Amino acid sequence: MTQQTYTLTVLCADQSGLIAAVTGCIAKTGGNILNLAQHTATDLGMFFCRVSFAGTASFTEDLFKETFTKTAEHYSMEWQFFNNTRKKRVAVLVSKTSHCLYEILLKHADEELDCDIPVIISNHPDLAHIATSFHIPFFQVDVAKGKEAYEKDLEVILAQYNIDLIVLARYMQVMTPEFCARWDNKIINIHHGFLPAFKGAKPYHQAWQKGVKIIGATGHFATADLDQGPIIFQDVIRVADTCSVDEFIRMGKDVERRVLVEAVRRYLSHSIFLHGGRTFVIE
Amino acid sequence: MTQQTYTLTVLCADQSGLIAAVTGCIAKTGGNILNLAQHTATDLGMFFCRVSFAGTASFTEDLFKETFTKTAEHYSMEWQFFNNTRKKRVAVLVSKTSHCLYEILLKHADEELDCDIPVIISNHPDLAHIATSFHIPFFQVDVAKGKEAYEKDLEVILAQYNIDLIVLARYMQVMTPEFCARWDNKIINIHHGFLPAFKGAKPYHQAWQKGVKIIGATGHFATADLDQGPIIFQDVIRVADTCSVDEFIRMGKDVERRVLVEAVRRYLSHSIFLHGGRTFVIE
Amino acid sequence: MTQQTYTLTVLCADQSGLIAAVTGCIAKTGGNILNLAQHTATDLGMFFCRVSFAGTASFTEDLFKETFTKTAEHYSMEWQFFNNTRKKRVAVLVSKTSHCLYEILLKHADEELDCDIPVIISNHPDLAHIATSFHIPFFQVDVAKGKEAYEKDLEVILAQYNIDLIVLARYMQVMTPEFCARWDNKIINIHHGFLPAFKGAKPYHQAWQKGVKIIGATGHFATADLDQGPIIFQDVIRVADTCSVDEFIRMGKDVERRVLVEAVRRYLSHSIFLHGGRTFVIE
Amino acid sequence: MTQQTYTLTVLCADQSGLIAAVTGCIAKTGGNILNLAQHTATDLGMFFCRVSFAGTASFTEDLFKETFTKTAEHYSMEWQFFNNTRKKRVAVLVSKTSHCLYEILLKHADEELDCDIPVIISNHPDLAHIATSFHIPFFQVDVAKGKEAYEKDLEVILAQYNIDLIVLARYMQVMTPEFCARWDNKIINIHHGFLPAFKGAKPYHQAWQKGVKIIGATGHFATADLDQGPIIFQDVIRVADTCSVDEFIRMGKDVERRVLVEAVRRYLSHSIFLHGGRTFVIE
Repeated sequence: MTQQTYTLTVLCADQSGLIAAVTGCIAKTGGNILNLAQHTATDLGMFFCRVSFAGTASFTEDLFKETFTKTAEHYSMEWQFFNNTRKKRVAVLVSKTSHCLYEILLKHADEELDCDIPVIISNHPDLAHIATSFHIPFFQVDVAKGKEAYEKDLEVILAQYNIDLIVLARYMQVMTPEFCARWDNKIINIHHGFLPAFKGAKPYHQAWQKGVKIIGATGHFATADLDQGPIIFQDVIRVADTCSVDEFIRMGKDVERRVLVEAVRRYLSHSIFLHGGRTFVIE
Repeated sequence: MTQQTYTLTVLCADQSGLIAAVTGCIAKTGGNILNLAQHTATDLGMFFCRVSFAGTASFTEDLFKETFTKTAEHYSMEWQFFNNTRKKRVAVLVSKTSHCLYEILLKHADEELDCDIPVIISNHPDLAHIATSFHIPFFQVDVAKGKEAYEKDLEVILAQYNIDLIVLARYMQVMTPEFCARWDNKIINIHHGFLPAFKGAKPYHQAWQKGVKIIGATGHFATADLDQGPIIFQDVIRVADTCSVDEFIRMGKDVERRVLVEAVRRYLSHSIFLHGGRTFVIE
Repeated sequence: MTQQTYTLTVLCADQSGLIAAVTGCIAKTGGNILNLAQHTATDLGMFFCRVSFAGTASFTEDLFKETFTKTAEHYSMEWQFFNNTRKKRVAVLVSKTSHCLYEILLKHADEELDCDIPVIISNHPDLAHIATSFHIPFFQVDVAKGKEAYEKDLEVILAQYNIDLIVLARYMQVMTPEFCARWDNKIINIHHGFLPAFKGAKPYHQAWQKGVKIIGATGHFATADLDQGPIIFQDVIRVADTCSVDEFIRMGKDVERRVLVEAVRRYLSHSIFLHGGRTFVIE
Repeated sequence: MTQQTYTLTVLCADQSGLIAAVTGCIAKTGGNILNLAQHTATDLGMFFCRVSFAGTASFTEDLFKETFTKTAEHYSMEWQFFNNTRKKRVAVLVSKTSHCLYEILLKHADEELDCDIPVIISNHPDLAHIATSFHIPFFQVDVAKGKEAYEKDLEVILAQYNIDLIVLARYMQVMTPEFCARWDNKIINIHHGFLPAFKGAKPYHQAWQKGVKIIGATGHFATADLDQGPIIFQDVIRVADTCSVDEFIRMGKDVERRVLVEAVRRYLSHSIFLHGGRTFVIE
């Protein structure tokens, strides 16, 4: 389909006539709605909406933005507008573990992740061969030179490749608060525990020690406060008490890779709204 | 909340401007949208939409219907309009097994099923005490007098209680094609197998014989073609090969009761659309 | 089946020949094994085993115990021996919420919980009618008279009914450390959160605030350290971000009741081993 | 761990003293049991048992087999004995779809599939590059030359690599009854439908047409009767009615790859028993 499509997201206080106003703007400027997902949180008095639409011959981005700006001001809406032709550019950061990287690259190769992946960055050389076999440039950054210097190197690469989103695919380094602030809500991390339980190191060991019967993984935005960023997606798997920690780790890998891809997919489809310190993923 | 709310469902061929037209009608007549769920099946070229809205002071049902009729004609829409104050009246039909009946009555008592349950009907006396303890009239129909005569008795009771929906909660009688036709898409049955596999009698025995590793249940509209009516909801449970058929039956009961309630809940929320011989449940 | 059956549980350090020794004892004394579940935790060097067996004509409990005592001493085994004819006597403690109580009573009525339920105790009168309709004595205890006095009343009732296991079916009172110690590993509580996350009050509110995508419930042994006792069973349910806290509470009820019954079922089948501060449930 | 380990599987009519006899044999010949999984199907009167054990200094395979043969004859047992050092040799057959092949190779590379994979065979050249990147010989067979001739070619390759198990990882060719008979219970196929529903071609299309709410995949032994061989493992995924057939296909891929690997894993751990035309997978 060569037809141009757009996505509009809207977040505001609930009021009468919001959907009619949003859809009216689209219709008036020559847009044809393909999909509308909306949630009115009556307990919060908040309205969340995502609309995808195609442009007919008369539609122009400029006209739409001009028209919608007035509507948005009238209702005090926060809004974002995306031309779906321009794919998001995603950098994948890895350390030594390959399962999450492979999952992202395979899903991307099967056209199941609608983005570009122009670069893979690591603090170790171990996974360079995977990057090579998928024909993606691989950069190794030197963590030993100190957080500040190495994050500066990182920023150079991210800028060079014009990156929109950073995916930490089991990247075993904590970012500085400054880095997190610069990439606010633009870094997705996979934590191998079912947050908010089992923060920090060795979550599978913690889970085993506690004797939990279900383990999980969490895809979340990285923030300065480690493993505390807004949760995007989670999944779990039942474990038997006959499992060792090593089996938790093995079984958890399948959950981690799925959760990370699903979190990234929700980002790419503009499904994630942030309000009151948590996400509202409206699908 | 004493505010009057309404639900509108729309089904038609996909065209430009549908959501704007629908929501515009609501806004124009003084409705305030609470929730809109919509699906455009691009592969089918079909549009499904359900809108719930509250009426402001100026809103009247007559004005809305008059206004919307024109819109609906213009777009060749099939539509239904519900005043949510008028609760659906549900008759529960049972035989000897109690778990599905209990589930419906308990969920209803906890205000989790938004309907009235004015009558319980059975071809056996066994569950009369449950009806009594929930203060609901219980009628026993005599199947021995022949299908025609007994279905006539049934119709008398259903008419007396002004019934909108029949729920077969493990009711072990097949209805005649005539009865099914009169109650088209108004009888919900629970089948204790994961349809379309394991139609007919003793589905758990069939499943065990085949060595399947997952069993399930199906809530569907009853049609003359037994266990072939449109599927509304399904759920499954993993079984071990150490399970006997009796354990399948025991474990399946939890799935059956949950599936039946969820199917009824979807009916009551006007979430079920029928098109091309199957349902589209839009939540 | 009128045949007498027994269950033996064994916990000890892993050593060569354990299963042969255990099963040999049973065979030698005239027992016929029906089911053996065993787990060797190689990482811990521990051996867990549960054997159910039928007694042939020559089998006597006394002979078996005498014979097995020697084996157990030789291998330093902790062991328990149960005559499955003697059903455990379970007291259910409730407050105002009925779904967990109903679930236990309905499963019991359907012969899916292999125990006696001779008494229901509450700190409120609200659920007395349910006890009545299931023909079970109901006692109301007065919490206002102070922890000590009221727990003394409780103990009198528990003693009168010769109770083996206390089930807290959404009983909204914290027990004193003394009471917990007296009933060590004999009180099963249902916590309406996926422990160890969301301890304490209002776990669904905590979960909503945090924006988790999956909620759950935990059946555990009650200890003086609230919501920290060994976990027996857990289950979870996926929630959408369109759910309010009230919907979490509604959806969670189904998880709670299932988890509580499954936890009790594991207790009654002698499947729960305690080691190193956590459970090992060997099924 | 360089210690030699063995696995014994036993299938016979249920009788008194079976476990004591089996474990006694192992103890007597110097074996130390690591794990015993057993199921007595009381409804069938059948006994299934799998024991893994380590050999102490005095243990020899010959002595064990000689000793156990007598026990087996006495109880009319079917049994198999495996030295776990000798890894099964697995040939993977593929066509054009890569997700199942990748899954097997990645799990194998992560040491999660305990076998050798010496060869990949295909009727198309498309996936040769994957074989290359994992350093595994790749053969292309020519189906156009006729079933008989091409299966002869296949047999030559399988013999050359001394293959024990054939895995059809979305291999789009039906085998002849003769081939299936020669490799009876040694060919594992993945069917992209939840058998026994949706046999044959295009199962996702069938499922969509029927409006099922859950789709699945089935790992089974290939037999002459297509998609009817004994089921080894199944899994499912919930689908929304907003999904197109293409989305079913995309979502199903994750289920297929997981199910195939889990089916192979159960084969490799000797967990699959065949009795009465179905499997009993004892884990």
